[in-house]
Amino acid sequence: MISANRNIRRLLRYRNSLCKMQELGFETVYSYNLGRETGVSPEQVRKDFSQFGIKGNKKGGYNINELLITIREIFRKDELQKVIVVGVGNIGNAILQYKGFQKNMIEIVASFDIDPTKYKKKKLPVPVYSLDKLPKFVVEHKINTAIMTVPERVAQDVADLLIEAGIKGIMNFAPTVLKVPPHIHIVNICIGHELESLIYHSLQMGNNGRGKGS
Amino acid sequence: MISANRNIRRLLRYRNSLCKMQELGFETVYSYNLGRETGVSPEQVRKDFSQFGIKGNKKGGYNINELLITIREIFRKDELQKVIVVGVGNIGNAILQYKGFQKNMIEIVASFDIDPTKYKKKKLPVPVYSLDKLPKFVVEHKINTAIMTVPERVAQDVADLLIEAGIKGIMNFAPTVLKVPPHIHIVNICIGHELESLIYHSLQMGNNGRGKGS
Repeated sequence: MISANRNIRRLLRYRNSLCKMQELGFETVYSYNLGRETGVSPEQVRKDFSQFGIKGNKKGGYNINELLITIREIFRKDELQKVIVVGVGNIGNAILQYKGFQKNMIEIVASFDIDPTKYKKKKLPVPVYSLDKLPKFVVEHKINTAIMTVPERVAQDVADLLIEAGIKGIMNFAPTVLKVPPHIHIVNICIGHELESLIYHSLQMGNNGRGKGS
Repeated sequence: MISANRNIRRLLRYRNSLCKMQELGFETVYSYNLGRETGVSPEQVRKDFSQFGIKGNKKGGYNINELLITIREIFRKDELQKVIVVGVGNIGNAILQYKGFQKNMIEIVASFDIDPTKYKKKKLPVPVYSLDKLPKFVVEHKINTAIMTVPERVAQDVADLLIEAGIKGIMNFAPTVLKVPPHIHIVNICIGHELESLIYHSLQMGNNGRGKGS
């Protein structure tokens, strides 16, 4: 059982790097290799692994294959995880088209929109249903997780509908702080805020030190 | 001058709520109102404001208009901030279509792709140039910030090109830990990892406690 979100994200970064190393033919990795590749200190790598009962060999190396199996077990990657997308605008559409989820045993099984007729002519990899079909679908297909790409003004209402239907985790792309019960897990991805924060920091750096591009 | 990223994100959340309150006709806000709307403790709200020299009135209320002006000044919203998008795939395309940046004085001025001919027939709001035009464009238009929506396998190479051209801040959508000099600011938005982390937490919640959707 892992409690903190940050541990989970580090594990996913380790997995990414470990997969690449395995593809390159490596069998063993050291905490400092993996730390360098993932931007984590070697101490933190060892601490994370020890938390999951993973032990290194005498020289401090770890078997890459064993690490990957353990990480897969933690994320229950033996079961396909079904996810729905609510709101088929530009971002929703881009997420539906993305093919990278499948390799990690995630499948987007359906999408929902306030006006599904708009998408009849578009080639989408999953059906688009109207919002009133959502509650039944979530229960029947035992969906726990939803990606919500709806306009800000309806975000709270749609979140309420999802939670009422039994959804436990929502990825929210609207720049709204959703009010949800404590047992509901929310991941906010506010591209606008992230971009403003980034511009703020870029401006602090100023326009000096330009490269040889001119 | 603000040092931590988290402060910046909180300020942006305050701004969002303050704009809504202003639209609803409110003139004054209390730290507990604003805290409740943004998921921040009233103490933190007061601490953040006091850091920027913003004082409340005798009863502890803040003038909404003054708050918004101060936040605008912090983000230098009197100047239009020009941004480029590199990689016009599904996500890149969705970001180009997004109209929400303009109200915050951000303009995406151009996009770049390894194969710009692919997009000749598509209706895009900005031109798509080939990557070899990027260095000159960045210097000539004094671009500091780039949104990078390229495949994982080329992410590091494209980041190197951007930094060489003079870019100071990169929003990276590839699931790669970019290796960059310390003065470069990176925001990673890895939708895949966020989704896996969310599914992990949703599974911990289990399938119990379903709503009345059935």
